[in-house]
Amino acid sequence: MKFKHITYLCLGIAVTAGLFACAQKEPVYTFVTQPPITEPISASTNTRGIEYPKVNPDLSVTLRVDAPTAQKVVVDMGGAQYEMEKKEDGLWWTTTRPQDIGFHYYEIIVDGVRVSDPSSEQFFGMGRMASGIEIPEVGIDYYLPQQVPHGDVRIKHYWSDITQKWRRCYVYTPPGYDNDLNKKYPVLYLQHGAGEDETGWSTQGKMDYILDNLIAQQKAVPMIVVMDNGTAVDARPSAGEAPRGGRGMFSFDTFVEVITTELIPEIDKSFRTKADRENRAVAGLSMGGFQAFQTGLTNLDKFAYIGGFSGAGRIAADTPIAEAYGGAFANAEEFNKKVKVVYASIGLKESDAFYRTVNDFHKQLNEAGINHVYYESEGTAHEWLTWRRSLHQYAQLLFK
Amino acid sequence: MKFKHITYLCLGIAVTAGLFACAQKEPVYTFVTQPPITEPISASTNTRGIEYPKVNPDLSVTLRVDAPTAQKVVVDMGGAQYEMEKKEDGLWWTTTRPQDIGFHYYEIIVDGVRVSDPSSEQFFGMGRMASGIEIPEVGIDYYLPQQVPHGDVRIKHYWSDITQKWRRCYVYTPPGYDNDLNKKYPVLYLQHGAGEDETGWSTQGKMDYILDNLIAQQKAVPMIVVMDNGTAVDARPSAGEAPRGGRGMFSFDTFVEVITTELIPEIDKSFRTKADRENRAVAGLSMGGFQAFQTGLTNLDKFAYIGGFSGAGRIAADTPIAEAYGGAFANAEEFNKKVKVVYASIGLKESDAFYRTVNDFHKQLNEAGINHVYYESEGTAHEWLTWRRSLHQYAQLLFK
Repeated sequence: MKFKHITYLCLGIAVTAGLFACAQKEPVYTFVTQPPITEPISASTNTRGIEYPKVNPDLSVTLRVDAPTAQKVVVDMGGAQYEMEKKEDGLWWTTTRPQDIGFHYYEIIVDGVRVSDPSSEQFFGMGRMASGIEIPEVGIDYYLPQQVPHGDVRIKHYWSDITQKWRRCYVYTPPGYDNDLNKKYPVLYLQHGAGEDETGWSTQGKMDYILDNLIAQQKAVPMIVVMDNGTAVDARPSAGEAPRGGRGMFSFDTFVEVITTELIPEIDKSFRTKADRENRAVAGLSMGGFQAFQTGLTNLDKFAYIGGFSGAGRIAADTPIAEAYGGAFANAEEFNKKVKVVYASIGLKESDAFYRTVNDFHKQLNEAGINHVYYESEGTAHEWLTWRRSLHQYAQLLFK
Repeated sequence: MKFKHITYLCLGIAVTAGLFACAQKEPVYTFVTQPPITEPISASTNTRGIEYPKVNPDLSVTLRVDAPTAQKVVVDMGGAQYEMEKKEDGLWWTTTRPQDIGFHYYEIIVDGVRVSDPSSEQFFGMGRMASGIEIPEVGIDYYLPQQVPHGDVRIKHYWSDITQKWRRCYVYTPPGYDNDLNKKYPVLYLQHGAGEDETGWSTQGKMDYILDNLIAQQKAVPMIVVMDNGTAVDARPSAGEAPRGGRGMFSFDTFVEVITTELIPEIDKSFRTKADRENRAVAGLSMGGFQAFQTGLTNLDKFAYIGGFSGAGRIAADTPIAEAYGGAFANAEEFNKKVKVVYASIGLKESDAFYRTVNDFHKQLNEAGINHVYYESEGTAHEWLTWRRSLHQYAQLLFK
C-alpha cells in the first residue's frame, strides 16, 4: 500500500502545483497493470451492479439472461453463436469458448430477434447501440486509468453550413490545458469506423487514458485530439448539382470538405492550437482510416502526419501510384521530406479482405519509395484492441 | 430564408469576435420553434437513418420490429403495453395511443424478455441503457439547438479517495469560457435521478441547449454546471466502522461527503470558478433532488441556492421542521436572509406518492415561513420534460 500512498501524495502535489507544471518536473508515476484472472470476474462493461456476464480465467464468458417465457435464446459473440440453456428458474445460461482479449460487440438473439443484452453497457457500434464486453488483457497498463494527470474530453457542437446541421465532435484537451494559458498545442484529428460515431474513441477506444498515460510518461507530446462524426451529407441547395454525390448522399468528399473548411477553422478558433500543417495530424480506424488518408493526401498543405488503423489508402491495382490522390506520391523524395509520418496498421486476425487492402497499400508505398510505418497487431481482429495499440504507437510518433 | 442567413451572419460575426464579446453586444438571435406535426415523422431519437418509430400528428407512435421467428412482441411505452401484430414479411407493427410530449424511456418485450428497441437510441435510465423516444412539443424553442453561441460539456475524470475510484463527472462550460480568461464563473451542481447517471442531464435533459439559449437571451448568467454521478460507495478501510452505512453501502451521506470534500475542491482547482457560497448552487431531479437538499441544507456555508425537481427535502411528519437537517430551518428569518433561492417542483402527472413528498415539503416550508419557489408542471409525469422545465426556471433564478 505504501507506494500507493506516495502516488496519491504525488498526484496531490501535481494537482496543487498545476498538472502541467508537475508533468514538467517528470514525477515518477506508479502504473497499475491488469491483474491475472484467478476466478470468474464480472466484466468491467457490465451495467452498474450486475453480476453476469462473467469472464473466466480461460477468458471464456459465462452469460445469464432472464427470459422465462422465451423459446430460444442465443448469444452471438466473437463470431460464434451459443444456444443458451434454460434452468428451472427461467434463467438462461451459457459459457462461450475463450474470447480474444480486448473489447467486443455482441448480441443476444431472443426467438430470432437480435437485441442488446440488458446486463451490459451499450456502445454506438454496428451502426447502432450494441452490447459490449471487455476481455481483460492481463499485464496491460497503457489504456487503464492511472494515477496521472487526466485531460478532459469535451462534447462540442458546431454549425455546419455544408450539412445544414449542428454537428457534434468530441475534443480531448490534455492535462494542464487550462493551467498554462500561453501554451498552444498540436492537433490530431482522429476518426471512428463505419458502424461507430464520434463517441467511439473515448469509450470503446479509451483514447483519453492512452493519451493521459503517454503524456505522463513523456512518450507523447501534449496534444489536442478532435473526434468528429465521419458521416456527412451535403445538404446545400447546390448539392444536387455538386460533384460530390449530390443531395442526400453520404460521401467521403463531403466529409473531407467539412473537416478542412469547417471543423479545422472551428477548432483553431475555439482552442489554443498550433494552426499549421507541421502541428496537424489525421488518423482513423477502418472507414476512418480511408477517410484520413483521403483527407491528408489531398490536403498536404494542412497535414504533415497521416495514419490509418485497419484502413489506409486505396489505390486500384491498375492505377499507377503516381496518379493516386491527385499525384500526392508522384515525387517520393519530395513527399518523404514533406510528410513527417505515414502510418498504416492491421490486425493479424482480420479478414483477408481487410488485410489485403492495408498490406497491398503498404507494398505499393514500398515500391514507390514512400517512407511509412507499417504495423501488424498480433492476435487481434477488426476490433478496438487493434486500434488502441495503433493509437498508442501513432501518438508517440507525432509532433516530434 | 432571409432571416436565417442574417442569423448565420450574426453567428459568424459572433464567433469571429469571440462568442462572449458578441453576447455582451446583445445580438438578436432568431430562435426556431418545434413545427406542428402534419404527417408521421421519424422520431429524433431514432438510430441513425432508421425510419420507425414514427410520431403521428396525434402524438401516437407507430413502431416496427423485425422479428420473423418471435411468438409475441409487445411494446411497453407510457405506462401501457401494446401487443404488436405480425405481418407476412415477418415485421411486427403497432401504433400506441397518443403519448405525452417530452422524452420517454420504453422497452420492447420479445416473448417475455424486456429488451431495448434496436431502432432507437439508448440512454442510461432505468438503471441501465434503455430505449428512448422524444415526442415533439410543438411551439417549444428553449431546449432546441439554436443559432446561438454554444458551451461545451466536458467529460472529466477525478480520483476519489473516499470511494477509492476514478469518478467521472460532466461539466458544462458556458459560451466564451475559453475566450475571456480573466472571467470567473458561478457553479451549479446538478444531479440525475436514481436510474440515471452523470450523462442524463446533457442527453435526455438537454441542459446544454437550455443554458446556451438562456445565456444568449441574457435570461441566465453564464455559469458552469457540474453533473456528477449520484452513487458513491465509501471504500475507505475505515468505512466498516463509519456511521454512513459502512463498506459496500451506497449512501447519500457518502455522496454528500464526496461532493463537498472532493468534487468541489477539484472543480474550484480545475475551472475558473467563483468559489464562495453566494456563487454556488445545487439541484437535482428525483433522487438527485433529495441529495441536493441534503447537500445544501447541511452545508449552508457552501451553497446559497438549493433546488429539487420531483424530489425535494424529506421531513418526517413527526419531526418538527426546526429539528430537520441539523436545524437548518430553526430560524426562518435568518434562513431567508442566508439562502437566496429554495426551489421545489413536481409534475402534475406524477404518482401521488411523489406528489405528496414534494407538496408536503412545500407546505412544511410555508408553515415554517421559509421563502421558496414552488412549481407544478402541467401535464408532465416523473420524466425529463418536468425536469427540463424546472431547470429552465431554476437557472434563471441563480446568481442574481
